[in-house]
Amino acid sequence: MERVYNFSAGPSMMPLEVLEKAASEMTNYGEAGMSVMEMSHRSKDFDKIIKDAEALFRELMNIPDNYKVLFLQGGGTTQFSMVALNLLRKSKKADYIVTGQWAKKAMQEAKKFGDIKVVATSEPDVYTYIPKVKREDFREDADYVYICMNNTIYGTRYPYIPDTGDIPLVADMSSNILSQEYDISKFGLIFAGAQKNIGPAGLVVVAIREDLIGFAPENCPVLLDYKTQAEKDSLYNTPPTYSIYFAKLVFEWVKSKGGVKAMQEINERKAAKLYDAIDKSELFKCPVNKEDRSLMNVVFVTGDDALDKKFVAEAKEAGLVNLGGHRTVGGMRASIYNAMPEEGVDKLIAFMEKFEKENK
Amino acid sequence: MERVYNFSAGPSMMPLEVLEKAASEMTNYGEAGMSVMEMSHRSKDFDKIIKDAEALFRELMNIPDNYKVLFLQGGGTTQFSMVALNLLRKSKKADYIVTGQWAKKAMQEAKKFGDIKVVATSEPDVYTYIPKVKREDFREDADYVYICMNNTIYGTRYPYIPDTGDIPLVADMSSNILSQEYDISKFGLIFAGAQKNIGPAGLVVVAIREDLIGFAPENCPVLLDYKTQAEKDSLYNTPPTYSIYFAKLVFEWVKSKGGVKAMQEINERKAAKLYDAIDKSELFKCPVNKEDRSLMNVVFVTGDDALDKKFVAEAKEAGLVNLGGHRTVGGMRASIYNAMPEEGVDKLIAFMEKFEKENK
Repeated sequence: MERVYNFSAGPSMMPLEVLEKAASEMTNYGEAGMSVMEMSHRSKDFDKIIKDAEALFRELMNIPDNYKVLFLQGGGTTQFSMVALNLLRKSKKADYIVTGQWAKKAMQEAKKFGDIKVVATSEPDVYTYIPKVKREDFREDADYVYICMNNTIYGTRYPYIPDTGDIPLVADMSSNILSQEYDISKFGLIFAGAQKNIGPAGLVVVAIREDLIGFAPENCPVLLDYKTQAEKDSLYNTPPTYSIYFAKLVFEWVKSKGGVKAMQEINERKAAKLYDAIDKSELFKCPVNKEDRSLMNVVFVTGDDALDKKFVAEAKEAGLVNLGGHRTVGGMRASIYNAMPEEGVDKLIAFMEKFEKENK
Repeated sequence: MERVYNFSAGPSMMPLEVLEKAASEMTNYGEAGMSVMEMSHRSKDFDKIIKDAEALFRELMNIPDNYKVLFLQGGGTTQFSMVALNLLRKSKKADYIVTGQWAKKAMQEAKKFGDIKVVATSEPDVYTYIPKVKREDFREDADYVYICMNNTIYGTRYPYIPDTGDIPLVADMSSNILSQEYDISKFGLIFAGAQKNIGPAGLVVVAIREDLIGFAPENCPVLLDYKTQAEKDSLYNTPPTYSIYFAKLVFEWVKSKGGVKAMQEINERKAAKLYDAIDKSELFKCPVNKEDRSLMNVVFVTGDDALDKKFVAEAKEAGLVNLGGHRTVGGMRASIYNAMPEEGVDKLIAFMEKFEKENK
């Protein structure tokens, strides 16, 4: 069977060149005489891999020097706990903006550890837009403000970075990391599960401003304290070595394509043509507020559940797979991360036009 | 460069056939049209992979039906926290036997959460033996007893399973899982980091008796509660999908070789011939109490640091790599996990004989 165009929300497509390189090195990496998977995490070979991965990530995302970059485990969900455990450090208050299920889950988890306020939410409107918040909306003594930059399920993203003044801003960038340029100095902490734009599931990359490290409570589980891994350059215990190696290959691939700036241009072009096709269509519509539309996850519906299902099934037959919306919302969702070739988007648009003609 | 014999303590050698199969499927798995790494964890293809992995693990380790098998993240270190958080459920007391650095770290972590007693330790004798403990040594109301079955750094393993009566016995089996047969019904919980006998670092496999699930405190971080993943068959959030797939390939490989019983026979033969060579040598000696010697990690020294270093360096030149002891103890250590071919042990013995002749 040929490789398909995989519109899954994550895990999702990886660059074919990267997969091929990983395959070619699987039994023997360079002069090591072994797979990266078989290397001691204390070996010189692996030390170079993790250092290169960090340097590339810093370069690509323009991470300031006063931020630590950590390669951790446990996914975004463990970050929901860690952010609260570590950053509720003075007033034990934090303010959350709830723009989807992931922000909501993060907020609910944080409630175990402090006084959490939902400052704004678009839940009553099925998360179809990003609330506009101002500096005055946040509690003056909040320890941090939390947002989810891109909402995979609902197809939205923040078109702006909220102004939180001196309050550290924490952002879940799992589904938009490396997809567009950001001024990281405006954030206190960002994190991203790897399985969309970085690499294999089971790795999460964190960038945290150094002054926010060291405030976990004494009885904090050792690996949920950012300090543990910050002091050991992510090598306190055995890290997910193969995933870090794979991430490094993806970072090299992004760099070879011109970096995040170039990725952003391609992503904007891919998204624009797909939204354009939807907006011009008489069959499909996108429920998301125009200025808040995600570059990564394009949500659309026909308004007829049965027709949606038919679309998803026939698209699959045409090699365009995983176009079903999240199980909680239905409809369609095309996730077009960095590794989705523009050709895949073109084929999807052509298929949509054909489907519309056949189903008038 | 040719593949070497890699005696690393972990991550360490993987079966070459498994690496080759993974490489061959890297860009396209079966009829999926994509890599396993690119699959949604909610897809039918991945569902079969994780279910097959669990069934194989249950079969190989003979896991009773009233135990849950979980595929988790965070390594053994996260288990140090989870065991204490979840199993300190009544008296909040637990008894630890300290037979090396890992058991000690587990004990220190548990102290954050309860009243921890070191019932026995071989630390004063540099962990060269396994203490003999009896039922009466444990506190009657202890919530659990904790042991590390095989001690990678010091080259020991329990030659017996401690009798703890009704008190659940918890065992870290990271470095001896799948290497010999055990009666799992004698344990309340076992866990194993994958990076020795299972697969890529970043995956940890847990088998927990069902009646021990559900006692985490209310403010337990969501993923540190065994109940969270037990209720969702390890799919509460995105699991380390590629690592689980790779583990499945290793389980299939173990099964194809005759299962754990056959592995144990091979491991006993490999270890016996290596210990025999050491005991017969006039240059090398093994500091470990004979009946407690590990099948997986064979520790030996010449008694001369400079000569030890020379041995490790010259062995490396001969394609026998990572034979240095742990950085805290020095000397030599040959880790001979399931994937180390018997031929590798034979070559090591031949090299030791040659080295001894040349360095009388």
